[in-house]
Amino acid sequence: MNLRYHTPLSPDEQRAFGLAAPQPLALADRVRFAELDVLRHVNNKAYMTWFETLRVVYGDLFTLPLYPSDSPPPRVVIRSGHVHYVEEMRMGEDYVTTAGVTAFRNTSYTMHQELWAAGRLRASFDCVIVTLLPDGSGRYPLPEAVRAHFARVDGAVAEG
Amino acid sequence: MNLRYHTPLSPDEQRAFGLAAPQPLALADRVRFAELDVLRHVNNKAYMTWFETLRVVYGDLFTLPLYPSDSPPPRVVIRSGHVHYVEEMRMGEDYVTTAGVTAFRNTSYTMHQELWAAGRLRASFDCVIVTLLPDGSGRYPLPEAVRAHFARVDGAVAEG
Amino acid sequence: MNLRYHTPLSPDEQRAFGLAAPQPLALADRVRFAELDVLRHVNNKAYMTWFETLRVVYGDLFTLPLYPSDSPPPRVVIRSGHVHYVEEMRMGEDYVTTAGVTAFRNTSYTMHQELWAAGRLRASFDCVIVTLLPDGSGRYPLPEAVRAHFARVDGAVAEG
Amino acid sequence: MNLRYHTPLSPDEQRAFGLAAPQPLALADRVRFAELDVLRHVNNKAYMTWFETLRVVYGDLFTLPLYPSDSPPPRVVIRSGHVHYVEEMRMGEDYVTTAGVTAFRNTSYTMHQELWAAGRLRASFDCVIVTLLPDGSGRYPLPEAVRAHFARVDGAVAEG
Repeated sequence: MNLRYHTPLSPDEQRAFGLAAPQPLALADRVRFAELDVLRHVNNKAYMTWFETLRVVYGDLFTLPLYPSDSPPPRVVIRSGHVHYVEEMRMGEDYVTTAGVTAFRNTSYTMHQELWAAGRLRASFDCVIVTLLPDGSGRYPLPEAVRAHFARVDGAVAEG
Repeated sequence: MNLRYHTPLSPDEQRAFGLAAPQPLALADRVRFAELDVLRHVNNKAYMTWFETLRVVYGDLFTLPLYPSDSPPPRVVIRSGHVHYVEEMRMGEDYVTTAGVTAFRNTSYTMHQELWAAGRLRASFDCVIVTLLPDGSGRYPLPEAVRAHFARVDGAVAEG
Repeated sequence: MNLRYHTPLSPDEQRAFGLAAPQPLALADRVRFAELDVLRHVNNKAYMTWFETLRVVYGDLFTLPLYPSDSPPPRVVIRSGHVHYVEEMRMGEDYVTTAGVTAFRNTSYTMHQELWAAGRLRASFDCVIVTLLPDGSGRYPLPEAVRAHFARVDGAVAEG
Repeated sequence: MNLRYHTPLSPDEQRAFGLAAPQPLALADRVRFAELDVLRHVNNKAYMTWFETLRVVYGDLFTLPLYPSDSPPPRVVIRSGHVHYVEEMRMGEDYVTTAGVTAFRNTSYTMHQELWAAGRLRASFDCVIVTLLPDGSGRYPLPEAVRAHFARVDGAVAEG
């Protein structure tokens, strides 16, 4: 299989890599030596970097372009998250991380992320993300266009 | 206040630093430049490193000495975790991370961790940790001495 | 241009990406959010990770297969290095890192590494690497096959 | 010995920790689990973080207060550096990093850094640092007060 890295994978490419169900965004990358720890497997903090990398790509591709271009974008921070480690990752493995919004409220949304390699789910991360004013002084409401994207493309549920 | 870094803090020292309730293990450290991100606050992955650092200290101090010294210790891995971010951390702040076991079963236990700075809770992390055989081929049961330590010192609940 | 990531680039591909001269090994990757610091450019430590990643790939591809398979490989460590930063890297940029051996002695060799992006040299790293016995108790001489590879493929100079 | 962490060490404290000669700035810290790699020693990139941490402390303590407070400070970047690894570092070791300026020119200076542990030099780093205008568009000349500090306190040589 000729895996394309750093490029959004189509639903067919995601299925070919073994994902149980195509996700709104999926990108491929490869384990680096620096991500291993003394147990010679990928340290669990590396997964957090991979998921973060994809959340930033998700924002750059899908949500930030929907904010007014004449004012600073929101400050996007994680409020809470739940990580589940299913199977360890090893040196040099190719992997795919995914991201999709499952629910949203006035100033926050819930994102579901998965990590796949060799046809098996290795980890998942579900987090609640809040959007703050650029100076952090309060909440920045989700624009209608962002809410519509979450609902229409990701199939997210409006909860508020 | 003369904060002692990298040294287990007494209950009185923990209260003096502002912790709501003393924890079984608490260590102080300071934010580094490398832990900041483009938002000029501590990136949320750094918290994971701080909590990891303390989990390793906890193991070195309290549990590993209770395993047989004539055979390799278990492989200790996180199965799942829930992180809650309460307030951001900033450059140069002194902080205290804590660790304590709240529940245990035959081959796993639940650890509660807190992050405090300037008298305020900044984040918490609750995770389920499993102990595997050194080669990862199966579970490594918690020795009775480890279970007793969890119950007696940390006040953990036996669930299995 | 359709850049192939994580795959050794041919001399033509290297020239197409703008490298001044093709190098023995060149791989492409992309800047991650986690690699930025408060100045909103890539922190200089990230370059060290990229160069390390490629040194490990170099070893896996070219030198480790030339060591006896029935005994542990050497412990490969950097003795010294000189880094030169030419131009900063920014969020999301594609880059290519390179590696090639320029000189070798009985138990050490000199590696030259470059970082390119958008047709411009961004940084270089020259380091002296020593090969130690697996337990670190002494030096592990370079096998003749490794020396021959350095000389024949990379054009390295034998200095000892 | 009662080592004080994260606090500038006096010349006597530096000598007590084993440094060959007291340096202008020296701070103590301790190895973290996250800094180890698969070889079970501290990865060489961690040294770069430790040296960076101290350079930032040096700037906060000694040079930034000497810049005009009514305009943004310079953008401080490394132009080149030479690292020398003398002896590996291991889990849990206490260490001291140092920093001092050895030479300066109109818009750059040379810093010498050392890493000590258990009475032995473990690594050194010498780098050339340039000061840029806040927007990076050109060089920011060293104020006379900064040059005077380098010469008087660190014993640095004026080269331009």
